[in-house]
Amino acid sequence: MKYALYYWPSIQGRGEFVRLALEDAGADYVDVARSASGMRAMEDMLESASIRRAPFAPPFLRAGELLIAQTANILSYLGPRLGLAPRGEAGRLWLHQLQLTIADWLVEVHDTHHPIGSGLYYEDQRPEAKRRAADFRTERLPKFLRYFEKMDRRAFSYVDLSLFQMIEGLRYAFPRTMSGLEKQVPRLVELHDRVAERPRLAKYLRSKRRIAFNQQGIFRSYPELDAA
Amino acid sequence: MKYALYYWPSIQGRGEFVRLALEDAGADYVDVARSASGMRAMEDMLESASIRRAPFAPPFLRAGELLIAQTANILSYLGPRLGLAPRGEAGRLWLHQLQLTIADWLVEVHDTHHPIGSGLYYEDQRPEAKRRAADFRTERLPKFLRYFEKMDRRAFSYVDLSLFQMIEGLRYAFPRTMSGLEKQVPRLVELHDRVAERPRLAKYLRSKRRIAFNQQGIFRSYPELDAA
Repeated sequence: MKYALYYWPSIQGRGEFVRLALEDAGADYVDVARSASGMRAMEDMLESASIRRAPFAPPFLRAGELLIAQTANILSYLGPRLGLAPRGEAGRLWLHQLQLTIADWLVEVHDTHHPIGSGLYYEDQRPEAKRRAADFRTERLPKFLRYFEKMDRRAFSYVDLSLFQMIEGLRYAFPRTMSGLEKQVPRLVELHDRVAERPRLAKYLRSKRRIAFNQQGIFRSYPELDAA
Repeated sequence: MKYALYYWPSIQGRGEFVRLALEDAGADYVDVARSASGMRAMEDMLESASIRRAPFAPPFLRAGELLIAQTANILSYLGPRLGLAPRGEAGRLWLHQLQLTIADWLVEVHDTHHPIGSGLYYEDQRPEAKRRAADFRTERLPKFLRYFEKMDRRAFSYVDLSLFQMIEGLRYAFPRTMSGLEKQVPRLVELHDRVAERPRLAKYLRSKRRIAFNQQGIFRSYPELDAA
């Protein structure tokens, strides 16, 4: 199966969670919107009135006849096909539950710099962002980290790839906070390091296909939002 | 199968989306935390170190050996079993994609009154709430409503029950805004009315099992957050 991934071409964003799974599995895929004509194709699909089951937003994945949106839904579909999830129902439900919790966590990361409106500039919501980021750093982030630190892990899965990405992104966005918290979650840090060394993934991370973290993505580096 | 639902006993919240499916299907279930001992049992489960696959937060569902968390994950599991979703993969993926988009929408509703921190009082984030609610009413809410207005609908499903709940909640929280917007989404309004008349659901809505909307839930009535 040749997959086609549709996502904004200049940020890691939510698309990156799908890219990591495709890359780690060595899947055959095209990252459609990273060419000018592909970007137009993606925007046409978002605005099309003729697509019967249209996505609300990127990322979405074309897999043969299927057009699948929502990051966790895409990963739940791909997981068993890429060897990154068990085929049995109990294991799949558990992984999906974890992935949906990661999705909730990611929204909270995003909202540290956009607590008022995703269509407004950061500069137009900076005081609110400072308050929200403080709450995130002291209340929510430790809670999520502790939860995933003690979660039940068996075979390697797409959830582990997503946790790698969370740690990477959090280190970029909140370096001082993370340097304080990481001591408390040694299993997560060990998992992150182990994922980074997986051969196909390591190669991907060094390639041009891996977009660098930047100030348009979900994880952003605003020192005033990090711990003092 | 006898199901056990675990959710906060004094609000509709996310648990209500699961309750509506169980009630509409006439399923055999117990709403565990609505007794004092059940509430303790739920809290014990959230804090237990011995549950191998623990939830991050309510709602969660006990179904035989399975313990399933995340609202959309629970509904994806229950859907085909309750006759509220097709069994085929394409149809299930599509419904789940819609349900996850409803989950995103619901977070945005919640954040209109809690843009800074869910652990803080509304009164401690009122100016921020006013700004966020204005953005929600003018940008995000119309976008979500328009999306679901034109979505592909076939057989009745749990997504229709959830859309009913969204319309109910939005009318409670933003009555003036909704009275302006509903003219633009006649199919959604018609769906809402049709769901309300389903015999088992109508009976449930009149029963004591249906908790009233209130100021601790996700949908809250703060007139200053509604349109002028």
